[in-house]
Amino acid sequence: MTGSDTGPAPSGPVGVFDSGLGGLTVLRAVRDRLPRESTVYLGDTARVPYGPKAADTIRRYALEATDFLVDKRVKAIVIACNTATARALPDVQDRAGVPVLGVVEPGGRAAATASASGRIGVIGTRGTVSSRAYSRVIHHCRPDAEVFEQACPLFVPLVEEGWTDDDVTRLAAQRYLEPLLEKGIDTLVLACTHYPLLKPLLSELVGPGIQLIDSAESTAAALDDLLSAAGLSSSREEQPGASYYVTDEAARFDLLARRLLGEEVDHLEMVSVDSTG
Amino acid sequence: MTGSDTGPAPSGPVGVFDSGLGGLTVLRAVRDRLPRESTVYLGDTARVPYGPKAADTIRRYALEATDFLVDKRVKAIVIACNTATARALPDVQDRAGVPVLGVVEPGGRAAATASASGRIGVIGTRGTVSSRAYSRVIHHCRPDAEVFEQACPLFVPLVEEGWTDDDVTRLAAQRYLEPLLEKGIDTLVLACTHYPLLKPLLSELVGPGIQLIDSAESTAAALDDLLSAAGLSSSREEQPGASYYVTDEAARFDLLARRLLGEEVDHLEMVSVDSTG
Repeated sequence: MTGSDTGPAPSGPVGVFDSGLGGLTVLRAVRDRLPRESTVYLGDTARVPYGPKAADTIRRYALEATDFLVDKRVKAIVIACNTATARALPDVQDRAGVPVLGVVEPGGRAAATASASGRIGVIGTRGTVSSRAYSRVIHHCRPDAEVFEQACPLFVPLVEEGWTDDDVTRLAAQRYLEPLLEKGIDTLVLACTHYPLLKPLLSELVGPGIQLIDSAESTAAALDDLLSAAGLSSSREEQPGASYYVTDEAARFDLLARRLLGEEVDHLEMVSVDSTG
Repeated sequence: MTGSDTGPAPSGPVGVFDSGLGGLTVLRAVRDRLPRESTVYLGDTARVPYGPKAADTIRRYALEATDFLVDKRVKAIVIACNTATARALPDVQDRAGVPVLGVVEPGGRAAATASASGRIGVIGTRGTVSSRAYSRVIHHCRPDAEVFEQACPLFVPLVEEGWTDDDVTRLAAQRYLEPLLEKGIDTLVLACTHYPLLKPLLSELVGPGIQLIDSAESTAAALDDLLSAAGLSSSREEQPGASYYVTDEAARFDLLARRLLGEEVDHLEMVSVDSTG
């Protein structure tokens, strides 16, 4: 470590956590955008999904993940989970002692800026949509915006099945997108970590008149800005490290991780973060 | 209670547990078949799904559910969860002190008996299929059988979305069933608690030459036999009771429960069964 013991050091890794493996698309965007940064990924696969759980439970899980990453001497944390961001971002920011970013604000902000008409669609899981977290961010940046949110609960299992270019997915997507297209949106936010894998199909369905905003890319861009502003960007020349931790034996981990991350996962370790267990 | 403290009483309720709400289809089959029996349902919604979790974890969860039901003075227990049955049936039987039935054996046994050709298809979640639990039961009853198992991971989210009579589901089902139909099966086991809701659609797709075996109905029939044999059948004349317990605030509980159970759920209570929490 090159920094003092009291603050984060530019040589430290960036921590990314998610309830499961979906956050690997965010990690991938971070690694693409910031190729000099080492990363530590934590997937709380023992307790996935967070979506249907009580708010207090989700906050406890997020704080346990935070403690784990802080222990790994991360210099910044990305909460790559919409549910945990919506429920626990301020708590994690209080606890971490390093800069913390969620996935909601960067995506919402990018959509508010990108839209010409201010008519913006948001697609995500049932939990994310019912939290209205994206609507709040978009309205905060752009009070005149009209936001239309649509839950697409089949998209995660379709991506996990590998049916990303498939007629079943195309038919389901048409069904989900129809009400948004009828509203005349010009911007569509992919507000779920699994959805970047559906970008080609969604892009084909909505046509060139609608801009897709990928929350994972927006978050990586926001992290870049945040590290620069805080003087925490890495100046490393050598290949940066990437460590992966999960909290339970991950069935199909390799296959899913390869799909979501776009490459093989090395240095995988199983850990416990449950402070009550 | 009319029985002694040392054994189960015919007037006691039947306990049914599942990792979530899917087991309500089994409860429904039990209530249809045995309208004089009171029931207690426990859905471990805080920890659903069990499928991807480690074997020891699943065993601990199943034993915690068992203790909860035994506390409710149940006279028999149905494990309405394929994963918990495959991982923990003998442990639960050791612990319970009352007769215990899983969902795997009744369905597998019914298929072995029903099939003329011995060529049997089994559809279920990825976890159930990879456990090969149905194959083992079928082969045990009928060593010459040829069993073909097919995971259908999209069926649970499709049922939960309510798309049980829908082109998206029809297309997905065609994809999943094709390899089984090519094998010339004459019997198809619905080895997942959500699948009874897909029976009309599946039946239409496979045609009249293939018999569908509904694990939930087979389990209710096996419970009927078991209670009779043990002298534990209820002779109650009045309307029997039905209590429902879940372990976490269940998002969309009412809607999903109505869909799976086929009626409204009264007397719902949230409880903790986690012995470590």
